[in-house]
Amino acid sequence: MTEHPSWSQLTEDEHQPWQTLSSRQLVGGFRPVMEDRVRVSEGTETTYQYRPRGPRAVFIFPVTAAGEAVLIRQYRYPLRATITEIVAGGVERGEELRHAAERELLEEVGGHAHEWLALPGFYPQPSISGVAFYAYLALGVTLGEMAHEATETIERVTVPLTEAYRLLEAGEIQDASSGLTMWHARRLLVERGLL
Amino acid sequence: MTEHPSWSQLTEDEHQPWQTLSSRQLVGGFRPVMEDRVRVSEGTETTYQYRPRGPRAVFIFPVTAAGEAVLIRQYRYPLRATITEIVAGGVERGEELRHAAERELLEEVGGHAHEWLALPGFYPQPSISGVAFYAYLALGVTLGEMAHEATETIERVTVPLTEAYRLLEAGEIQDASSGLTMWHARRLLVERGLL
Repeated sequence: MTEHPSWSQLTEDEHQPWQTLSSRQLVGGFRPVMEDRVRVSEGTETTYQYRPRGPRAVFIFPVTAAGEAVLIRQYRYPLRATITEIVAGGVERGEELRHAAERELLEEVGGHAHEWLALPGFYPQPSISGVAFYAYLALGVTLGEMAHEATETIERVTVPLTEAYRLLEAGEIQDASSGLTMWHARRLLVERGLL
Repeated sequence: MTEHPSWSQLTEDEHQPWQTLSSRQLVGGFRPVMEDRVRVSEGTETTYQYRPRGPRAVFIFPVTAAGEAVLIRQYRYPLRATITEIVAGGVERGEELRHAAERELLEEVGGHAHEWLALPGFYPQPSISGVAFYAYLALGVTLGEMAHEATETIERVTVPLTEAYRLLEAGEIQDASSGLTMWHARRLLVERGLL
């Protein structure tokens, strides 16, 4: 399955209850921040700061043929902390989602997958951002050399799937998108006899 | 349980692999955006835009004594779309998390809970934000009048728990934090015989 049925629903609505009165860019570049003046209803206006739709990322939960989860430990500068995550990365302009997923799997953990299963997509922070994330379960993953960007501080950690889900249930997968992807993958892993 | 054991882990590490060389504020106010010059390693520097730690929010999955899930349909301006979520909201400066959760439950769906169970906390977007979210399962919820802010466009939807989890598995709970909270709550609901 190349795309999950839910992905086509991650779009703007036809009906817009709020009306944009004016819009200006507070921060430019790769991750723009906008500030709009908005009419919420008759007589109610507000100012809304947000990141617009456009940027997309892919999240990949890699599992080996032996039933091991491939996790990463990544230093996140905004947190000033190293946390446990799954493989993820931004989709380049014009890039196919599946291509981005294969690229990130290779770059971050040196992985190749035998089979790709699409999982539900989601919005990580809809109150302030239009960014959309797309998730995959990658099965039969083999691991080789990693090719991290110079500005990534990543360690690869391979653990049995039961241990990965123990971490998840204990709240030790602190990245929301990684945790959500793992939960969505669980039933498929059970059905395959891997968990 | 007032706090989940995982919440105390949502903190900065003692060891910092990256070094901040300079820092400036690109956007001020309630949701600041910073731009730092950072030394990643010997000879590698980068510029990092991010929202710093500080802001917190609570997510509450309300379930009635009859085993119904209380969901909301909320218009999200950054998405230009109305999506299905659970109750959530920002924690005010100096406010206790549990107090914020009780306040949001009352404001958004007119709810009072008989029992509160803390669930794992998480970071919604650690690549660009230090914001931390704290989740609760609220049981025995009774519903009354709602008191939405003038700048919220929210509709309350009560559905059987089985239907709520069908929506979740189908990818129709598009807000990541709502979905993650519901997944974490699932085992507790099964143990209580509610699901």
